[in-house]
Amino acid sequence: MDDARLSVWLDTIWQDLHEAAARRRGDLPNATIASVNEDGAPSLRVVVLRAVDRAAAELSFHTDVRSEKVLQLLARPASEVLFWRPADGLQLRFFGQADLFLPGTLKATAAYEAIPEKGRRKYRTAPAPGTPLPAPDALDFAEAAPGAADPGLARFTLITFRVSRIDALRLDGSDQTRAFFHLDGDRLRSATWIAP
Amino acid sequence: MDDARLSVWLDTIWQDLHEAAARRRGDLPNATIASVNEDGAPSLRVVVLRAVDRAAAELSFHTDVRSEKVLQLLARPASEVLFWRPADGLQLRFFGQADLFLPGTLKATAAYEAIPEKGRRKYRTAPAPGTPLPAPDALDFAEAAPGAADPGLARFTLITFRVSRIDALRLDGSDQTRAFFHLDGDRLRSATWIAP
Repeated sequence: MDDARLSVWLDTIWQDLHEAAARRRGDLPNATIASVNEDGAPSLRVVVLRAVDRAAAELSFHTDVRSEKVLQLLARPASEVLFWRPADGLQLRFFGQADLFLPGTLKATAAYEAIPEKGRRKYRTAPAPGTPLPAPDALDFAEAAPGAADPGLARFTLITFRVSRIDALRLDGSDQTRAFFHLDGDRLRSATWIAP
Repeated sequence: MDDARLSVWLDTIWQDLHEAAARRRGDLPNATIASVNEDGAPSLRVVVLRAVDRAAAELSFHTDVRSEKVLQLLARPASEVLFWRPADGLQLRFFGQADLFLPGTLKATAAYEAIPEKGRRKYRTAPAPGTPLPAPDALDFAEAAPGAADPGLARFTLITFRVSRIDALRLDGSDQTRAFFHLDGDRLRSATWIAP
């Protein structure tokens, strides 16, 4: 990489994601994470970026162990995370591996304990995500009985996504700028401008 | 389906997409389409919704025949299109099959001819998308020589996505409403409320 503009752009990308995760504002906290289902077809959903660790090249997300993406990502961890910021036409594609920390793991418990009470509610629902309901509001929220274990803790799952490559694209009217960044943890293996 | 709210919601979804494609404003025209690469990993990118045909349950997108999604979708047409409207927390997942109309087909030519001159420019680029460039602005735009064929026409590809199922989710603070709609062309096979 002999073009300082590439390393400046990469710094900006990490900085923007770090701020998005910390402030939870704007479009970047909402990412799309892809998995592949048992038929080999792709499966998408919007998730909230919870933490960014540039030194480890890791992004973190939260999910319910009962959601279909958990089994899909366990079966095929190679996945992709896409960010899209319409205000300046920024598309960021992150390629990497999803590591799942299931309920009962130290990392999942620590992450759950850092969530405010309001955010824990959605992990206490019954029936499981994807189950037919007789009415849109027929979802039950179990409350943790005093002294009993929190039912949400038994479902909360932490996803850390280890990034190995970034495909960054900026659309500015009819001009487009695009670059590939290959990462190895905190080390930048290569960076290249790419035809959009 | 014995709940009129479900059919009202489905009508709203198609209407919103129809307006998004026609007016090209707001967040809904920007969809994420997924494919699967040769290693079986998912691959994502933002595309612009160009047309909606509810009677055929079809969404249309444009692409360059040289982009990686073309070969990926030809190899595995089962794919997913995701829409996300942050203003009211609407996530729409469309499951279906991607049909590709390659350059030279009547449908691709007709769609290309309906694009304004400005929109054709990106199909005339050299080198091909994904090729390393020495500088971010080192992209060439070929101009059609007078009397010669438009080089963009030889690359323009139309994607029509035939929808068989919709997973609609609305996040309203901590409340979530979700439904599945199974379609068979213009016929609604079933609609059900689903646990989010």
